[in-house]
Amino acid sequence: MGLPVSFEDIEKAAESLSGKILRTPAIEAPALGDALGVDLSLKLENLQRTGSFKARGAYVKLASLSEAERARGVIAMSAGNHAQGVAYHATQLGIRSTIVMPAATPFTKVEKTRNFGATVVQYGATLAESREKVEELVAEHGYILIHPYDDPLIIAGQGTAGLELMRDIPDLDTLVVPIGGGGLISGIAVAARHFNPQIEIIGVQTEQFPSMYEALRGLPPSSGGETLAEGIAVKTPGKLTTEICRALVEDIILVGEVEIERAVNGCAEHQNLVAEGAGAAGIAAILKAPERFRGRKVGTVICGGNIDQRMLATVLLRGLSRHGRLARLRIDISDQPGTLARVAGVIGEASANIVEVHHQRMFQDVPIKKAELEVLIETRNPDHVLEIVAALNAAGLKTRVMSNMAMEQAPL
Amino acid sequence: MGLPVSFEDIEKAAESLSGKILRTPAIEAPALGDALGVDLSLKLENLQRTGSFKARGAYVKLASLSEAERARGVIAMSAGNHAQGVAYHATQLGIRSTIVMPAATPFTKVEKTRNFGATVVQYGATLAESREKVEELVAEHGYILIHPYDDPLIIAGQGTAGLELMRDIPDLDTLVVPIGGGGLISGIAVAARHFNPQIEIIGVQTEQFPSMYEALRGLPPSSGGETLAEGIAVKTPGKLTTEICRALVEDIILVGEVEIERAVNGCAEHQNLVAEGAGAAGIAAILKAPERFRGRKVGTVICGGNIDQRMLATVLLRGLSRHGRLARLRIDISDQPGTLARVAGVIGEASANIVEVHHQRMFQDVPIKKAELEVLIETRNPDHVLEIVAALNAAGLKTRVMSNMAMEQAPL
Repeated sequence: MGLPVSFEDIEKAAESLSGKILRTPAIEAPALGDALGVDLSLKLENLQRTGSFKARGAYVKLASLSEAERARGVIAMSAGNHAQGVAYHATQLGIRSTIVMPAATPFTKVEKTRNFGATVVQYGATLAESREKVEELVAEHGYILIHPYDDPLIIAGQGTAGLELMRDIPDLDTLVVPIGGGGLISGIAVAARHFNPQIEIIGVQTEQFPSMYEALRGLPPSSGGETLAEGIAVKTPGKLTTEICRALVEDIILVGEVEIERAVNGCAEHQNLVAEGAGAAGIAAILKAPERFRGRKVGTVICGGNIDQRMLATVLLRGLSRHGRLARLRIDISDQPGTLARVAGVIGEASANIVEVHHQRMFQDVPIKKAELEVLIETRNPDHVLEIVAALNAAGLKTRVMSNMAMEQAPL
Repeated sequence: MGLPVSFEDIEKAAESLSGKILRTPAIEAPALGDALGVDLSLKLENLQRTGSFKARGAYVKLASLSEAERARGVIAMSAGNHAQGVAYHATQLGIRSTIVMPAATPFTKVEKTRNFGATVVQYGATLAESREKVEELVAEHGYILIHPYDDPLIIAGQGTAGLELMRDIPDLDTLVVPIGGGGLISGIAVAARHFNPQIEIIGVQTEQFPSMYEALRGLPPSSGGETLAEGIAVKTPGKLTTEICRALVEDIILVGEVEIERAVNGCAEHQNLVAEGAGAAGIAAILKAPERFRGRKVGTVICGGNIDQRMLATVLLRGLSRHGRLARLRIDISDQPGTLARVAGVIGEASANIVEVHHQRMFQDVPIKKAELEVLIETRNPDHVLEIVAALNAAGLKTRVMSNMAMEQAPL
């Protein structure tokens, strides 16, 4: 086909990887699929040794180095999954690795990378500054740079995930694959088209980082901002990956933070899987545009699970709040004995469970003889919350819903 | 062997189940295994259609019913996974199902069961009262009772999980299987011993519900209490399952709530899997007695993932707190302008991130000219927390750690 990576390259990568990484399962996911209204299968790269698919390309590249190159040591720039993939496999292969991370990288990511055996250098406020540091270290020590995506061996390595998926579930009609630099989708697209030349390949990026989307359309780059899907927050797609995506990727769906958050929540709630934002981006795309996937057998890669635990807990709690299963009410009460008992009585009669209670009396929007009560309650659904609010108001207890409850029926 | 269930029964159950449930993956789990210091493999029944292995036995039993029996409809008593398994497959098979649940069953479990097509009857403060209701409904309507574990077909159905596990990972030395009524471990034990007569079978129960442990030792029953592992909180083991466990189960490890909580946390943190308390009980047993598993290839079944999302979020946050990655500090401050800036300055210099701040001035343990500040901070580890406390104290800001931080190094 004249593309920078061929199916044979991916087969070779798969041979090289045999026994070095987990052959992750591909599963049918009817629970999550039913919630989305789609026939859904998932390739579970979040179960991979380092928590993401990145271990594949990293190993293939590292294993290809000559003895002389290995002796020089390797370097990579990454705050995330690529760092862990390179660190882990370099150590396994007896190669010294240096990972340059922006100064503000969360400590857990630094520590995980260090625990895999890498020397971590935290430098720079931005990735551009970190890149300068990498160039400086390469010039000084002669390290071999392991690019996160724009390298045929890396692309071939990531493509092995697609090869395994197509062998496990050959009758997929559509693949939905998250795009950061484009390494994963490029490799998967080459692999999948070998098995099924008709298979549809759809990419996913975030609205904040639509870099490949813009590159393919000749639009000026606009990437930037905060996203829960930091694993695909890449400003500049690869040259090789852009070429492959131009040839093989049908379309790219851009998703917002809301879809990504709901997708992470849905993976946990309906499928018992922990996915990071980027890892759930395929689900976010289906959530964004379900009509594009109806009646088709859809596969997506849960490409990573390295989400901060506090972030995950917050996503779960916000999910409950959105679905009206956890609600925060603010109730104006007279500051008198017995009032809390009345409030609790009304809530209890409506079969909701009180989780937390706060009083506040100090601030200016509360009249001096009144107090404000905030209660966190467990409820059944938005209608149940409204029923409780109505019962409180009917009892003369002026009540507002403070939590962010979605009244429309959302699937996730 | 003369046991109530034979390997041939399990093979027959597997044939009957083919295409009706997910053939869940069995994976090597080096990330969680390394954290525990054990060579670990996991059978992922939390990915099963209804979120647990219970769908297996339920289908096998339901599919065995005659036309006349099917026409009568079925009934089951369960607040949890058995309810969902029976409801789902009864509906698939066109059989009417009635599920009796205790009155206090959480609404999400009621709703999921109803969504699978069952008629849910909530009755009774205890399971004993619910049982009376079941008997009444059986007498009145002639429903067929689907027992959750003490039935050869149910046991054979659950055993198919063991058959698949042994086919996928034949060289396991030890299986660790949670025990409620004993259906899962009985079926798995029969299946596994067929493939490897030497394989060691270890059961897990909680300290609150050691019913099979006591039955096998002739001890008086002592079960009762609250547990995160409500899926294995069974007071009376089955007659058939007790017979099989007596013959095939080497030992039963009793785990406490602390181990179960850490196991649920570890499944999410290290393996990106959502497990309910009972689903993580095998991991809890390894955590409790790691020396018994060293040097062996250990398999366990993550037998369910139906955990309340608020509970899961709490487990994750408590895990961060235990590992010193989230800390709540209480600081005595003088109630003067600039004090918060000083506190924030000391914390920021120590590279910790402030997540929440509360002031309180009202209660009696604060002198009138002082205030108390509570800050929630993100930290690296227990030493980092202590370093920050020392820095605050050195700056004249009297500080205590309020969160529940473990100073010893715990694996999960």
